[in-house]
Amino acid sequence: MDIIEELEDNLGKNKVFYDNASKYAYGFDASIHHAVADVIVKPKNANDVKEVVKIAYKYGMPIIARGAGTALSGQAVPIKGGIILDMAGMDKIKEVRIENLYCVVEPGVIYAQLNNELKKYGFFFPPSPGSGDVCTIGGMIATNASGMRAIKYGATRDYVLGLQVVFPPGKIYRIGTSTLKNASGYQIERLMVGSEGTLGIITEATLRISPLPEKRGVALASFDSLYDAGKGVANIISSGIIPSALDIMDKICIQAVNKSMKIGLPDTEAILIIEKDGKRREIKEDMEKIVRICKESGSKKVEFTDDEKEMEKLWRGRKGVLPSLSRYGKDKISVSLADDMAVPISKIPDAVKSFQELSKKYNILIGTYGHAGDGNLHTKILINPKDKEQWKKAEKVVDEIYKVVYNLGGIVSGEHGIGISKAPWMVKENLNIMKKIKDAIDPKNIMNPGKMMEWKGSIITNLRYR
Amino acid sequence: MDIIEELEDNLGKNKVFYDNASKYAYGFDASIHHAVADVIVKPKNANDVKEVVKIAYKYGMPIIARGAGTALSGQAVPIKGGIILDMAGMDKIKEVRIENLYCVVEPGVIYAQLNNELKKYGFFFPPSPGSGDVCTIGGMIATNASGMRAIKYGATRDYVLGLQVVFPPGKIYRIGTSTLKNASGYQIERLMVGSEGTLGIITEATLRISPLPEKRGVALASFDSLYDAGKGVANIISSGIIPSALDIMDKICIQAVNKSMKIGLPDTEAILIIEKDGKRREIKEDMEKIVRICKESGSKKVEFTDDEKEMEKLWRGRKGVLPSLSRYGKDKISVSLADDMAVPISKIPDAVKSFQELSKKYNILIGTYGHAGDGNLHTKILINPKDKEQWKKAEKVVDEIYKVVYNLGGIVSGEHGIGISKAPWMVKENLNIMKKIKDAIDPKNIMNPGKMMEWKGSIITNLRYR
Repeated sequence: MDIIEELEDNLGKNKVFYDNASKYAYGFDASIHHAVADVIVKPKNANDVKEVVKIAYKYGMPIIARGAGTALSGQAVPIKGGIILDMAGMDKIKEVRIENLYCVVEPGVIYAQLNNELKKYGFFFPPSPGSGDVCTIGGMIATNASGMRAIKYGATRDYVLGLQVVFPPGKIYRIGTSTLKNASGYQIERLMVGSEGTLGIITEATLRISPLPEKRGVALASFDSLYDAGKGVANIISSGIIPSALDIMDKICIQAVNKSMKIGLPDTEAILIIEKDGKRREIKEDMEKIVRICKESGSKKVEFTDDEKEMEKLWRGRKGVLPSLSRYGKDKISVSLADDMAVPISKIPDAVKSFQELSKKYNILIGTYGHAGDGNLHTKILINPKDKEQWKKAEKVVDEIYKVVYNLGGIVSGEHGIGISKAPWMVKENLNIMKKIKDAIDPKNIMNPGKMMEWKGSIITNLRYR
Repeated sequence: MDIIEELEDNLGKNKVFYDNASKYAYGFDASIHHAVADVIVKPKNANDVKEVVKIAYKYGMPIIARGAGTALSGQAVPIKGGIILDMAGMDKIKEVRIENLYCVVEPGVIYAQLNNELKKYGFFFPPSPGSGDVCTIGGMIATNASGMRAIKYGATRDYVLGLQVVFPPGKIYRIGTSTLKNASGYQIERLMVGSEGTLGIITEATLRISPLPEKRGVALASFDSLYDAGKGVANIISSGIIPSALDIMDKICIQAVNKSMKIGLPDTEAILIIEKDGKRREIKEDMEKIVRICKESGSKKVEFTDDEKEMEKLWRGRKGVLPSLSRYGKDKISVSLADDMAVPISKIPDAVKSFQELSKKYNILIGTYGHAGDGNLHTKILINPKDKEQWKKAEKVVDEIYKVVYNLGGIVSGEHGIGISKAPWMVKENLNIMKKIKDAIDPKNIMNPGKMMEWKGSIITNLRYR
């Protein structure tokens, strides 16, 4: 193949891989999808990336950037074949400038690695995705990743000051700035956040950083009714307290966790886990207020702790929902479908109630939990992935779930992104403008094609489960 | 003129104005520029705007949206003639949803008006431009306005969740969402922030809101050297304290204020005004730390107050810099040239020192002050606006100022935007991508043409001073 020779000539044979095992292995991410790549390139710097984009452009071959492959919607799956750019080798933290409140990193830097470095200075990069121990900064930018602390700290989009990007037909651009403020033209750096590799390849990022909070405290509130729990969320927010995390778990999730882990969560209809960070003194004051609000909202039992071990245990329980649900259903596993919708905060109880009704209507297991404080829910649908009929039913349920979400003023993805798995349910009005921008920047459609606004038809094709 | 008849037919005669006085008056904003408009339209709703865009598109006539006309770089000046869309009549606060942490407003809502409403609930919309008492939300979004509290609260771009926008050739789009999180495709709503009316017309905005802080305190620190003041800024930031404002004033600005106002600022080389807001208890703790850091950084005198009147007085002094400078120079007034560059925080002293050197080299008065905490400086150049030679000299100085700024890793505009006055000094690398997006969305180039990447040549044409 000409293109492989050209890649080898330009980058060196040690950066280009096309054995069958690699082409197959690089066809997965953490989504339900799989496809086989044509060739894998492991760039070491922006210049390597530039060469690859040039060659891809010349041959009209798809090019898909990949960080740690933790994408849940198929963003890193080479659905049209092509070149996988494995960015993991570009993993240098180039600068930490505390006095300027920014750091400069390559896209392959792992989130936890960056925060370990920043911790030495008493700082951190706040967006905290569930996959933070392994996911890369490049992937976080490409998908606008966030996590449970977004209610207080925002998402990745709020921290990107500047980027180095390779755009087609193969040119390195420096966009944005190293300054905290920027009113100097279109904010292309913010447009890149969430563009999922469909416009250009990020080769460096300048990120705002924040001081680590002094301390945190966590409250656990039990509710006999999901509605009361939702009311509790709205009442906490309206009181002017912004927690650093505010998560909800429904009965199915609580039971699943209690069955598989020794956390001993209260056996009730719904729980809220509410974390507040900040100054030592304010934690106690705010936590007392939060406990009072939960009680006034109908909670029968609220406990508060600032013991690190206890707090760690509670969050371990919350993070254990996903693996626990997979064990809960015997022959069924949890699949990533409709797994991160967002609704306005006050609509959380309506959303969860509707999902429970759909679960009954379709006789399908759906566990619901998530970041209630910022309106971001996770539904996990349990099916036997070898059973085609169950996939079809699941797809119908997904469609109904999104109807509910839109009726509540919500949106298809809060933090995982679109990729393939959510593409058919994107807001139609945005697509036209997105398409115009895409065509203008990537006229040959080589940048991660076939995703987002380009995906047509059913999502239950190219399944990883065979 | 056909187009005027068509506007009148579609919108009603009471919304269309084309008398000479109006066409002249609507040719100003707060910048140094002026041009005469062809017709002024005062829309009442998104549908009116849609009709105007349709007609403008049909005739290929420029269309310039205008809020309160406080733009400092000529964004609202009809440099190519055309239709001025006076958005002031679309001034409804449509929703305040405290429990969802958002509000929905029309673009003509005045910043202070919105915050008066939100205050009833203990909330506010944090970006706080100097012109906040009169400027509109639409203008704030179009220019990514911010102000002195951006170091803690960010800029307008960090608060825009969703927008309703009319794009050419005349269609209403709903982009973004009402949810706090959004990973559902390109963030067109964030691309619109700072686009200065060159892509579409904003007809509604959904904005994130924040709880008002309980209390604030302000410290005033005097320094014998500008460098020490800059060191103080970097030391405060590195300590992990994020003030709610951290402003710097140089000797010229201090003297100008003391001459024209009875504030009694310390007669010294530089002062820092440092504000910290938050919980009652933490203010004192943080303020004591800030005072200590200022002393360690070389400040001879640091005073701290939490008395509302005293704090108000200090900020009045800071806000009095601009009018005071205009009085300072006798026949000279302060003109908006190079007036809001941003540099990395630690480069503030280098920047100010270089500006002072340029002032000497060119024998021209430059006062420097600004939001040192977020690296955003204001330089005010004093000239006699009737004297063409002085303009020419000023333009040369501006060019040298931006060379300094770029060498320090800075950027042309931190909060006022580009318009005409800063266009020649934009980052060249961004322009190519901006142009592609502009052409794709506005192919007939009717949306605020001739600005930003389209401005060619000198900026000292179309001056308002005759």
